[in-house]
Amino acid sequence: MKNDRFLRACRREPVDVTPVWFMRQAGRSQAEYREIRKQYTLIEITHNPELCAEVTILPVKQYDVDAAILFSDIMVPIAPIGLPFDIRAGGPVIETPIRSKADVDKLHDFDMEQDLPYVIQTIQILSKELHVPLIGFSGAPFTLASYMIEGGPSRNHLKTKTMMYEHPDIWFALMDRLEKTIITYLEGQVNAGADALQIFDSWVGALSPFDYETYVLPTMKRIIQGISHLAVPNIHFGVGTGELLPLMKQAGSDVLGVDWRVPLADARKRAGHDVALQGNLDPATLLGPWQEIERRTRVIIDQGIQQPGFIFNLGHGVYPETNGEILRKLAHFVHEYSSNKVRQ
Amino acid sequence: MKNDRFLRACRREPVDVTPVWFMRQAGRSQAEYREIRKQYTLIEITHNPELCAEVTILPVKQYDVDAAILFSDIMVPIAPIGLPFDIRAGGPVIETPIRSKADVDKLHDFDMEQDLPYVIQTIQILSKELHVPLIGFSGAPFTLASYMIEGGPSRNHLKTKTMMYEHPDIWFALMDRLEKTIITYLEGQVNAGADALQIFDSWVGALSPFDYETYVLPTMKRIIQGISHLAVPNIHFGVGTGELLPLMKQAGSDVLGVDWRVPLADARKRAGHDVALQGNLDPATLLGPWQEIERRTRVIIDQGIQQPGFIFNLGHGVYPETNGEILRKLAHFVHEYSSNKVRQ
Repeated sequence: MKNDRFLRACRREPVDVTPVWFMRQAGRSQAEYREIRKQYTLIEITHNPELCAEVTILPVKQYDVDAAILFSDIMVPIAPIGLPFDIRAGGPVIETPIRSKADVDKLHDFDMEQDLPYVIQTIQILSKELHVPLIGFSGAPFTLASYMIEGGPSRNHLKTKTMMYEHPDIWFALMDRLEKTIITYLEGQVNAGADALQIFDSWVGALSPFDYETYVLPTMKRIIQGISHLAVPNIHFGVGTGELLPLMKQAGSDVLGVDWRVPLADARKRAGHDVALQGNLDPATLLGPWQEIERRTRVIIDQGIQQPGFIFNLGHGVYPETNGEILRKLAHFVHEYSSNKVRQ
Repeated sequence: MKNDRFLRACRREPVDVTPVWFMRQAGRSQAEYREIRKQYTLIEITHNPELCAEVTILPVKQYDVDAAILFSDIMVPIAPIGLPFDIRAGGPVIETPIRSKADVDKLHDFDMEQDLPYVIQTIQILSKELHVPLIGFSGAPFTLASYMIEGGPSRNHLKTKTMMYEHPDIWFALMDRLEKTIITYLEGQVNAGADALQIFDSWVGALSPFDYETYVLPTMKRIIQGISHLAVPNIHFGVGTGELLPLMKQAGSDVLGVDWRVPLADARKRAGHDVALQGNLDPATLLGPWQEIERRTRVIIDQGIQQPGFIFNLGHGVYPETNGEILRKLAHFVHEYSSNKVRQ
């Protein structure tokens, strides 16, 4: 691997410049991807190792980012354990959501080689072709459980929360099942060649700290413990989770991902200094003029590089409306602006 | 007025027990309201002073809460200034959203007596009938602007944010127009008899502190300055705004409303001790068992009453699925549990 500054930052080691990558860097913001999507659905791409590797590599070539992330969807391991889903315009839709203990008991064990051989093959191709680290990933238990219980995206997660409060036995049975699935899925990706892992908890910001600590943290701790023997860095990311940072820190990941709502200096105060941070430009900013993007990026880098262990990213995924040229320019700016500033 | 403990808490004066009311306490969680809605739309109710007063009073009688809030919708003053809207299942829909400076310039001046005489009449009825304070309210400029620009509810507020970044001239022209409208609307409610005011910024938690300070705070400051001569307390409420509390504090309101994501003790640290707090039970908790509601309520009250100036509320509006009996029980519990604890 030629460029390991992303991995060094994950480990809070000195870097030459601030590493940068973008959540959802492969996707509809790229003309080439939109062309491919005229012929293939998202799920068809993930089933096709050559094509999936191509889509994964594209933004690395075009934007000169310091990491690739496997092109996939957080729902991918959910179908093999027994909950088939469709990806529609508004997000994934599950026809038979989890409603009872029996529904949880019916879920299958997850087997990486049997269930997702094409993911293994994709990662194997990428390991040979990439000159930057490959990030494997999984959805986090709360976010996956919310899709599985609500049957799709939800604004208020009412069914999910009600299950937590009314039926903690069903909730924790589902958490246990997801814990095993997620650990096996992440292990499988590292065994195939992934150099780092990110766990996406996109919806967990809907919970109070009280509920996070009670219903989610124990499972997150066991997952991060369960992947610690893999010896690759892991990133724990959430949206709207500024208030949860002290608890997420307890879960034990190497890097905490933060969104644009919390200034990095505050995130550092809450998370402590013995964890790296990743973030946190509002991806909506990328739809505005370059001057506004640059102003905000300077503030983020100035705060981020106050100590080793900082990765520049967005606070959430790239919006489809984003111009890819802006992403290229931003990655370049992050490298250039930080080059004279980072602590060696 | 027999019961003024809500107003005393707003002013950080000693109270006998912690005052409590619930955002959206009048609404679909009440069987009587659901009956009324079989005959009248929400907008028809707001146009009918006798009926609207009845709906406003109902939860005060049933739940024994310490304040009434005018039954209305944050969009009510938007139609008179020139943007007609429909209330549909997913929220308000505006047929001709704001897209240009010309669209802003076309907006009319707002005149309370001419435009909303039925709101004045409703408040006049309520002033006579209520034995608790009546809270008048308005949407805040960002939240109203988001509806006006997006044309309805939005997950990511992309059109709104893009207008802020690309066309600050249009954005600030709209902010100025909303500032005048909101001040006039709130004045009109107090002149008719409202005893307190709440400004709802339901969506502003989507902004980074950087953007809040640049695009929203100046207008919020002028609004709160503009209603200060009215000599009634005002509450500034947002959802997901824990990170914005230090800035919202600068806007100058008497009370800051906080949602369930931020523990009250943290909110106090960020907002300072010279402002009252209102909140912050997750309304989803009300769909769970009483034991869980009570556990969380104790924690909130224990933190809230550490100093004068605390009003118990939810962190957002009551969900329609909520059992009214639970709201009654909760109001009673807040009074009982706090009675031996509050500082005299």
